[in-house]
Amino acid sequence: MRLIDLLGVAVFAISGALAGGRKGLDLFGVTVIAMVTSIGGGTLRDLLLDRHPIFWIADPSYLWAVLAGTAVTVAYTRLWIATRKALLIADAFGLAFFAIGGTQIALQVGKPPVIAVLMGMTTGVAGGVLRDLLSAEIPLVLRPGRLYATAAIAGATVFLLLRSVAPAVAPWIGMSVVAGIRLLAIRYELSLPVLAVPPDTP
Amino acid sequence: MRLIDLLGVAVFAISGALAGGRKGLDLFGVTVIAMVTSIGGGTLRDLLLDRHPIFWIADPSYLWAVLAGTAVTVAYTRLWIATRKALLIADAFGLAFFAIGGTQIALQVGKPPVIAVLMGMTTGVAGGVLRDLLSAEIPLVLRPGRLYATAAIAGATVFLLLRSVAPAVAPWIGMSVVAGIRLLAIRYELSLPVLAVPPDTP
Amino acid sequence: MRLIDLLGVAVFAISGALAGGRKGLDLFGVTVIAMVTSIGGGTLRDLLLDRHPIFWIADPSYLWAVLAGTAVTVAYTRLWIATRKALLIADAFGLAFFAIGGTQIALQVGKPPVIAVLMGMTTGVAGGVLRDLLSAEIPLVLRPGRLYATAAIAGATVFLLLRSVAPAVAPWIGMSVVAGIRLLAIRYELSLPVLAVPPDTP
Repeated sequence: MRLIDLLGVAVFAISGALAGGRKGLDLFGVTVIAMVTSIGGGTLRDLLLDRHPIFWIADPSYLWAVLAGTAVTVAYTRLWIATRKALLIADAFGLAFFAIGGTQIALQVGKPPVIAVLMGMTTGVAGGVLRDLLSAEIPLVLRPGRLYATAAIAGATVFLLLRSVAPAVAPWIGMSVVAGIRLLAIRYELSLPVLAVPPDTP
Repeated sequence: MRLIDLLGVAVFAISGALAGGRKGLDLFGVTVIAMVTSIGGGTLRDLLLDRHPIFWIADPSYLWAVLAGTAVTVAYTRLWIATRKALLIADAFGLAFFAIGGTQIALQVGKPPVIAVLMGMTTGVAGGVLRDLLSAEIPLVLRPGRLYATAAIAGATVFLLLRSVAPAVAPWIGMSVVAGIRLLAIRYELSLPVLAVPPDTP
Repeated sequence: MRLIDLLGVAVFAISGALAGGRKGLDLFGVTVIAMVTSIGGGTLRDLLLDRHPIFWIADPSYLWAVLAGTAVTVAYTRLWIATRKALLIADAFGLAFFAIGGTQIALQVGKPPVIAVLMGMTTGVAGGVLRDLLSAEIPLVLRPGRLYATAAIAGATVFLLLRSVAPAVAPWIGMSVVAGIRLLAIRYELSLPVLAVPPDTP
């Protein structure tokens, strides 16, 4: 379980490092973006829940996983171009793990379901939002055509509904829902409707 | 009082949802911007003051107020165009309530006046700053021509000065100062001077 | 020591106020950018380490130092253009003080070395990152050609290695390393390599 956790962090670090490289950042900038992308969501969750020490301060191996992901990205930049699909698939599983993990943590500290789902979503997507803020762009996850946060919310909700009925399998079903929706959204380019507001509104 | 509080959150959510819609975000993006705009300032205040659980974790009705504000915006988008003025006026009262409420909370946890005014201002304006950051724009509140934060600071200061003399009416006078300055600034387009720095300075 | 601390804050406030002025912000906007630049890094450090009250809430003199730095910048804008070099040198010493101070604080609350170095870096550079985010730009510190964060990390590491051997002089040597690297980087325009990622990668 811990291995999956560290792998999830490394996969998110690779996605962050690639985003930083595309923006022409130097090695330090790339490392910072990788770090923010992979541990930013969990950090925000821990701050909001007043859960200290924050997970990567309690266990710095997460930082080494980020550095490993960044180093591999820098060493084999060309490789990632060939494996675009593989990375998107790995990212879907990373999101699944983060979203259900974040939901479980909020429940463990006694929060109600609506807060737990919100924390699951935050853990899954806030890192990517911070990555895009540091790149001076409107966060990808807020723009149409991804079903990214939707997948996190749906999976967290399914997990919540099932956990009193079948506590042992509920997390796995929740994760499958997250990863499944994301993979279908990638495959069939599904999206949510756009809210059209004319430009001269307040 | 609680009703005014929830109404303030809903008004700020509408302003956030409209901003998100103008940027071409999808329904999820619009909801996130609405949430960040309406509860972001109070969240930052609670984090800085180490006040846990954070207000919307302690009482999730705030989240429902955000969702209600967002749903109404999405359902009646065209309506808001006709009511631009009404929304600006509602926003002035929302700011007044947030600014004085934030100041009171900082005093309740024993902070000195300068911190209390800063927390009042933070509660009032930080949500809008986060909204603009997520839209990849320089925050409106920092740009000339709004007297937005100035109104919050002035009202919080008046409240502080009056509260030992007239504790019962001080909050109401403080709120009137905030809303009054904002309404005058909108009506007569008042603004603060701009600091002109030539572009080749360090 | 406390005087150096307040001077460091004032120097960072000047750099923030100049950045805000260049963006055409009003007096309030300039003050907010100055505040975020000078106390943002330490605030993030205190939040992540759960160290409450946050340093400027515990001791509001820091806020007065920010206001003094901002007032001086606004009053003598033209002066700063003539003293570009002086400001860069002052900034190098401010960074040195913040980075080693942040590292010491993390060690005092019992964190391991890797976290301490990260907190030293965060204290030194996060304020500038927030300044650039509020200006809707990719943070300067992430872009090539500064050795800014690198200087903070190198100095914090030297301080950590020396502090068991020579606890009395270790902070001073650490600060000299930070300031020295920055001054050499400015003088000889040193930089880290850029990670080149072709634009069509995921």
